[in-house]
Amino acid sequence: MCAAANWGPGTAPSKMFASDNAAGACAEIVDAVVVVADQAHLAYGNDPVTAAATRRVAEIFETDVDLHCVSTGSAANSLALSALVRPWGSILCHRTSHIQVDECGGPEFYTGGAKLAILDGDDGKIDPGLLRRAVADRVGDVHSVQPQVLSITQTTETGSVYSLDEIRTLTSIARDAGLRVHMDGARFANALVHLDLSPAEMSWRAGVDILSFGITKNGGMTTDAVVCFDVELATELAFRAKRAGQLASKMRFESAQVLAYLSDDVWLRNARHANAMAQRLVAGLRATPAVRVRGSVDANLVFCELPEPLLSRLLDRGYVFHHGIPEPGVARLVTSHATTAADVDELLAALG
Amino acid sequence: MCAAANWGPGTAPSKMFASDNAAGACAEIVDAVVVVADQAHLAYGNDPVTAAATRRVAEIFETDVDLHCVSTGSAANSLALSALVRPWGSILCHRTSHIQVDECGGPEFYTGGAKLAILDGDDGKIDPGLLRRAVADRVGDVHSVQPQVLSITQTTETGSVYSLDEIRTLTSIARDAGLRVHMDGARFANALVHLDLSPAEMSWRAGVDILSFGITKNGGMTTDAVVCFDVELATELAFRAKRAGQLASKMRFESAQVLAYLSDDVWLRNARHANAMAQRLVAGLRATPAVRVRGSVDANLVFCELPEPLLSRLLDRGYVFHHGIPEPGVARLVTSHATTAADVDELLAALG
Amino acid sequence: MCAAANWGPGTAPSKMFASDNAAGACAEIVDAVVVVADQAHLAYGNDPVTAAATRRVAEIFETDVDLHCVSTGSAANSLALSALVRPWGSILCHRTSHIQVDECGGPEFYTGGAKLAILDGDDGKIDPGLLRRAVADRVGDVHSVQPQVLSITQTTETGSVYSLDEIRTLTSIARDAGLRVHMDGARFANALVHLDLSPAEMSWRAGVDILSFGITKNGGMTTDAVVCFDVELATELAFRAKRAGQLASKMRFESAQVLAYLSDDVWLRNARHANAMAQRLVAGLRATPAVRVRGSVDANLVFCELPEPLLSRLLDRGYVFHHGIPEPGVARLVTSHATTAADVDELLAALG
Amino acid sequence: MCAAANWGPGTAPSKMFASDNAAGACAEIVDAVVVVADQAHLAYGNDPVTAAATRRVAEIFETDVDLHCVSTGSAANSLALSALVRPWGSILCHRTSHIQVDECGGPEFYTGGAKLAILDGDDGKIDPGLLRRAVADRVGDVHSVQPQVLSITQTTETGSVYSLDEIRTLTSIARDAGLRVHMDGARFANALVHLDLSPAEMSWRAGVDILSFGITKNGGMTTDAVVCFDVELATELAFRAKRAGQLASKMRFESAQVLAYLSDDVWLRNARHANAMAQRLVAGLRATPAVRVRGSVDANLVFCELPEPLLSRLLDRGYVFHHGIPEPGVARLVTSHATTAADVDELLAALG
Repeated sequence: MCAAANWGPGTAPSKMFASDNAAGACAEIVDAVVVVADQAHLAYGNDPVTAAATRRVAEIFETDVDLHCVSTGSAANSLALSALVRPWGSILCHRTSHIQVDECGGPEFYTGGAKLAILDGDDGKIDPGLLRRAVADRVGDVHSVQPQVLSITQTTETGSVYSLDEIRTLTSIARDAGLRVHMDGARFANALVHLDLSPAEMSWRAGVDILSFGITKNGGMTTDAVVCFDVELATELAFRAKRAGQLASKMRFESAQVLAYLSDDVWLRNARHANAMAQRLVAGLRATPAVRVRGSVDANLVFCELPEPLLSRLLDRGYVFHHGIPEPGVARLVTSHATTAADVDELLAALG
Repeated sequence: MCAAANWGPGTAPSKMFASDNAAGACAEIVDAVVVVADQAHLAYGNDPVTAAATRRVAEIFETDVDLHCVSTGSAANSLALSALVRPWGSILCHRTSHIQVDECGGPEFYTGGAKLAILDGDDGKIDPGLLRRAVADRVGDVHSVQPQVLSITQTTETGSVYSLDEIRTLTSIARDAGLRVHMDGARFANALVHLDLSPAEMSWRAGVDILSFGITKNGGMTTDAVVCFDVELATELAFRAKRAGQLASKMRFESAQVLAYLSDDVWLRNARHANAMAQRLVAGLRATPAVRVRGSVDANLVFCELPEPLLSRLLDRGYVFHHGIPEPGVARLVTSHATTAADVDELLAALG
Repeated sequence: MCAAANWGPGTAPSKMFASDNAAGACAEIVDAVVVVADQAHLAYGNDPVTAAATRRVAEIFETDVDLHCVSTGSAANSLALSALVRPWGSILCHRTSHIQVDECGGPEFYTGGAKLAILDGDDGKIDPGLLRRAVADRVGDVHSVQPQVLSITQTTETGSVYSLDEIRTLTSIARDAGLRVHMDGARFANALVHLDLSPAEMSWRAGVDILSFGITKNGGMTTDAVVCFDVELATELAFRAKRAGQLASKMRFESAQVLAYLSDDVWLRNARHANAMAQRLVAGLRATPAVRVRGSVDANLVFCELPEPLLSRLLDRGYVFHHGIPEPGVARLVTSHATTAADVDELLAALG
Repeated sequence: MCAAANWGPGTAPSKMFASDNAAGACAEIVDAVVVVADQAHLAYGNDPVTAAATRRVAEIFETDVDLHCVSTGSAANSLALSALVRPWGSILCHRTSHIQVDECGGPEFYTGGAKLAILDGDDGKIDPGLLRRAVADRVGDVHSVQPQVLSITQTTETGSVYSLDEIRTLTSIARDAGLRVHMDGARFANALVHLDLSPAEMSWRAGVDILSFGITKNGGMTTDAVVCFDVELATELAFRAKRAGQLASKMRFESAQVLAYLSDDVWLRNARHANAMAQRLVAGLRATPAVRVRGSVDANLVFCELPEPLLSRLLDRGYVFHHGIPEPGVARLVTSHATTAADVDELLAALG
């Protein structure tokens, strides 16, 4: 292949534990994209692939939805939030949330300068007591931004998963106070299969108004999506997406990925697999002296304390993963749809 | 295929003259994406595919460049402009330019509220005399937005192509007045092969600071790009792109498209083909009584006056194209890398 | 006086025809400010002066109003528009309107990047036919900004005044199409006394939703106001004003000006006087050979063609006024509450 | 007086301890405004009063300055910050700072969505150790906002004053890391006389780039100011101020206040008086059993713990002040230029 000859082969997939977005794309999604490449369709989503994708999402979520395919999870979050908050509002979120720490102010940009109000809580989850205080903070006081949105991350950034009760507790507090609810579901599928719930149960039936629906990290290629359960926001979202440069001209390439993702349980299988690989990894790590697994491992993220010699040994053998965050001596190992049991076992063997 | 079973086959490619972004993607680009799908790479552009793409763009343009793959041409334009203009600046552009009429205020969003100052001119091209006046308009007057950027569209929205002299005339006026220059090159390749220039000649050597480098409309799939010749803007562009949700996590899927596009003259061949199909179409239309071709047909856009019976006949036979813009009785027929000579001849036969 | 010793006496008031905002402030307004200066009141408008001002505005306009004192007419316009338009909306306005040409993009800033759509029309007034087309322009097309607000300037920038019928024609077109209506009333009083209407008749009863209510140009000191007839916008306006740095801490100094302005017909007397001085000036100019008055002189703005020798003579004698706009040879002479009949006669005498 | 007859007399000045912006305006400032009211000057700061004010500020600060009179302290802060930070930057500030808690997101609005990064520290002051970490936080990481500005509040919100050494320690850390420095000097004069420094020493010589120069709280009427020591920012500030609706048309009314404020030591006398009244109050409170003064009282803000019976007694006698912030049982008593020794003694007598 001419083009591919220009770059190296990358990291051996068996050594890649940096992130689920470091994996390739799953075959079903690639196949769908290849089919679309030979077809002719009107641009900007006026095509049957996009229509089918929207129908499929509605079917999966058992309700009418407004679907916007966007090119990144950051865009999904920022766009979703911008439809829920006015510039003088605040978005209540966890201190570790992606919207707060990893989007370079994207939510502030899309919302016209709304403020993120930081909440704490163990295990990456918002503390309900703190939320209760925050939703009432200076309401009606013109000198202060006004609480308008709760943003929950499911799966959290630390790899834990909110139980259905935990979600409902938070969304009830928010909705009782008149706030809207956003869910950052970059790893929605991983949480879903962990809890063994239906998509509806873990989203709108649990009080979520709008969902950043992650696809990229679970076998996708170039698309994530906003799934909005309040279809009255559809027009606003459409204009906001267009202005943000997020209305793809060849939208069917994105929609085809969504469709393939949600066909034949591809998304659930990918997520179950990634989670299972994480559990296999955790089991091995727990059996490894000198290694300590941290926090809940509910999905496909594993944080562990790794003594320096072990850390160096893995790096020397070509393993790629993040370490030193949140502090020295901690490694983050992430499994994906592409991680095999052999990959995990090999890593564990390397640890000794 | 499971997913593809959910949608219909779309318009027959032979009948699709709606736009070049209604065509599929060319084989070379699809192939590159398929290769990437099996590889593991770090996210956010920290991968060898993206590095190779940047090297290739620099090679093609014979200079250091800063490359940002983005998901749409709208994002390319808005992002590029945001790095050149301050919120109190104005962007001088043609009345028909995409940034003015077809991006729902995207440039205003990305730039923090800069103003588009509209210029006229025949054949979709900015009139130099009007530009000369505009660059001096109320300069230094705090009550007025300040001219800061000239934006040229090459190929224009009406299908004409600025000659090199015409470009230089405009960019000289702009640069002499201290303005920066943006080129909307959604159809850069079509103009390039028409003029038979090198990429450098038609861009930075002609006074262009930053280029929206179109890929989607010329055989691409999900990416366009910003190519910045002023590498001092690289940092600003990087942060702006991230904030805008335009830093793709699996960036290598975009970069691979860029690489394939620029390998083995794929992009030039695609553009030459599309342009040739437009010329074949024009020749046929000119030979068709009652049809009148409008304006210059320098690239792959053909505007023509089509009497109602002919218009209806084409529509009845399943042809898909835009009509009624800018006024009733005018049809826009667009050819692409996927248009065949047989497709053109068949359409002409339908008319004749 | 110590402080005043630091600056010169300024232009002789008798020679000042530059603008109505070049005049000082009327005695009644100064007196009210002096009274407030000795009082103690809670900040941010939580004071009886502001309450009384709001009551008085409601009384004058014969309806509930939401009042926001702001420091400039630019702020009044931008703030008012921001409550009526979403970022993807457009504001339809005359080519010569202050919001388009003299606010350096303030409306774009306050609205988060909405677009001003320019309309033409004679005598500084929007042409109804053009408005009719503009309100329907690409409605529902996600690629285009959406018409959401009509902004009328009363008194226009060229010194003409819309008749009540003309206003109603425009607001009907706008409202029928679902647009909201803003009136830039920097010289509201001058138009009002010219038409001999009640404030209600020329505003909300004529279809105006929100009014930039000018005070500065008609004898005020440091405040203009937004008067909103749609009280459901009150909360949004309050938060937007605060964010914009327009919630004055010692608000009562602004409110006192509003109250004094609206007490004892001060505002109407000031406006009648300024208009009468303009008529006196026009009568004299019309009697002056070689001088030609331009356009309607309905309020206190006089545009006239002045041969170079006359222009120079006025300047030599110390007269201060704008000239050369919109073109060489045209002078703009503005009268105010502070212009005396003697001042006018003296200027006319100077012209010979 | 007609207008003043519309409102009540307000709180007796002797009972007003709510804030320094609840006091009236000092005589010298009122006098200057009255003088201007009879003069004619060109608008928008093109007048000798504004020129004299700029000269006087430069003289007082012993350096070239760029002066912008604005209508509120919020506008001063937001405008000043907007010239120092890009949208992807962060502004490091104390948790209690006005820009963080009391401006409803004004800084986010003016800056196009920059982020406020919150620092802690005792007595309302930023902890240098925390600042040292914050200036290095994720520098160069495109996923994170970038530290670009340090904002110090002098006098702090809790009534303490940074020593010169404390300021220098913070500004050195900031400047060494490439950050610019903003000082929120809403109560600059109160701090200045407390430290007995020159204006230059406490500002640009101590590393401050731009100053929100408070006037309103120290005897002013309708203006605060931005004083910028980096005159290269002048153009940017001018355009930003205009866009924000902060370029007053009758600017000389603001400039005259600045001049009067800075003439004959008015500002220093006002501040010394307010501070002295606070010390008198503190001395009395400390002698009052059951009352406990909190934190440093370096300027004119006194926080004290007041048992419920005493609190109620004060309220019953008509005293106006804030209480319950930051927690129940705490009262904030603020003195001003208008507070008399008798007022203080009377309040103390009421307590006990």
